[in-house]
Amino acid sequence: MKIPNSHPRYDSLMAREALVEGVKEGLVVRQGLIAHGRGEAFDYLIGEVSIEPAVEAECAAAGHLLRARHPVISVNGNVAALCANETVEAAKAVGATIEANIFHRTEQRVRKIVGRLKNAGAKEVLGLDPDARIEGLDHPRGLCAKNGIYSADVVLVPLEDGDRAQALKGMGKVVLTIDLNPLSRTSRISDVTIVDNVTRCMPSLARFASELRGDDERIDRILSEFDNKKNLTEVLKHIARRLAKLESVSFD
Amino acid sequence: MKIPNSHPRYDSLMAREALVEGVKEGLVVRQGLIAHGRGEAFDYLIGEVSIEPAVEAECAAAGHLLRARHPVISVNGNVAALCANETVEAAKAVGATIEANIFHRTEQRVRKIVGRLKNAGAKEVLGLDPDARIEGLDHPRGLCAKNGIYSADVVLVPLEDGDRAQALKGMGKVVLTIDLNPLSRTSRISDVTIVDNVTRCMPSLARFASELRGDDERIDRILSEFDNKKNLTEVLKHIARRLAKLESVSFD
Repeated sequence: MKIPNSHPRYDSLMAREALVEGVKEGLVVRQGLIAHGRGEAFDYLIGEVSIEPAVEAECAAAGHLLRARHPVISVNGNVAALCANETVEAAKAVGATIEANIFHRTEQRVRKIVGRLKNAGAKEVLGLDPDARIEGLDHPRGLCAKNGIYSADVVLVPLEDGDRAQALKGMGKVVLTIDLNPLSRTSRISDVTIVDNVTRCMPSLARFASELRGDDERIDRILSEFDNKKNLTEVLKHIARRLAKLESVSFD
Repeated sequence: MKIPNSHPRYDSLMAREALVEGVKEGLVVRQGLIAHGRGEAFDYLIGEVSIEPAVEAECAAAGHLLRARHPVISVNGNVAALCANETVEAAKAVGATIEANIFHRTEQRVRKIVGRLKNAGAKEVLGLDPDARIEGLDHPRGLCAKNGIYSADVVLVPLEDGDRAQALKGMGKVVLTIDLNPLSRTSRISDVTIVDNVTRCMPSLARFASELRGDDERIDRILSEFDNKKNLTEVLKHIARRLAKLESVSFD
């Protein structure tokens, strides 16, 4: 950890260290490092800031979570390693249940994630005693908590696998995701796709939740105006414009 | 390894498995997985094929290696895990010395890489007894072999760190790199940047070497016509065009 915080890409380098550390601790799987690298590349192309379409999606996601009868935030190893505190804060702000739910499931890793979230201030974290299944997924990928993801009407699944996002959609849930790849299957099939770094997104969700809480008219307007396909198209346009700009900055 | 070879992204998924396996064997470091993920994202944006500018750069790189007085190919953990056989074949085709040279140096890991390359048919692999230093890099990042990288006039450094590529340029060498990120520092400062997957590039280098060997006139023409900045601009244009196309395919 010899990264000076004056480094222009300090946040990105610190996130990388947090993930590598997470593997050593058994919180993150090796495949999670590769997935993080993919995210890094997209974040770099985006400019490592929350762009306008991302902020709009964060606002819409906060609206959905506030409106939900039973909102649940699903937390995997990468999310726990990167931003446990911010995730717990966001869950409190929107009034969501937290469930540790992972793709490469082992009891031990779920326990690590639950521990990390409790250290970050979560009172209750589901996931250790799964008593239900996400329909259409093989065991153990489909394991979940009956009073968590299984019965949720709105789920926030940051950094989620495409098959699992699809299965949650198939169960009729409103699926919100955080995914830096605007072209991933998860991004395409979710109701709200936030193309932003999860570490920037969680505080933004908490902020929007406090701002919107109680303002039903504004929530109505936001939810009726939000168009996920249009939003993703805006993200791709942003990246294409940035590529053109980077090109002229670097090579001319 | 349950990936059916009919899977549309079979090569990419197999590469991922090879890297994860490489970590278990001690060939690849965890940071190498993150770097691989970044490469995956760029390869996806490129279309997971060798695009025209990459093929041109491969041709120019083969020309440089054939022309060199003392060409050296530097091999790190990711390269050894992904394509040891293809790298050894390419080295034979161009008549280059192979040196195991890594960023996160441990004696044990260098030994693993040397072993992997010898199993792949390499007669001699330098790197285990470094007796020189790349100027301007701290110990142990600068360690190298006197009769390898240190005295090379042309070096191929696939998947190289920016500081190290810069230091090799500073020593007056012709630096050839393979890097899927056309915007990386290594990509920008190298004499020839091949924006291609290393597993596709190595066989292509071997092919061009057999094609060009002895045809001095054609090598002259290729080397005088190749323009790395122009080539990188073409790569960025390709990605921007592909983003526009992906957008219309996926969202309309």
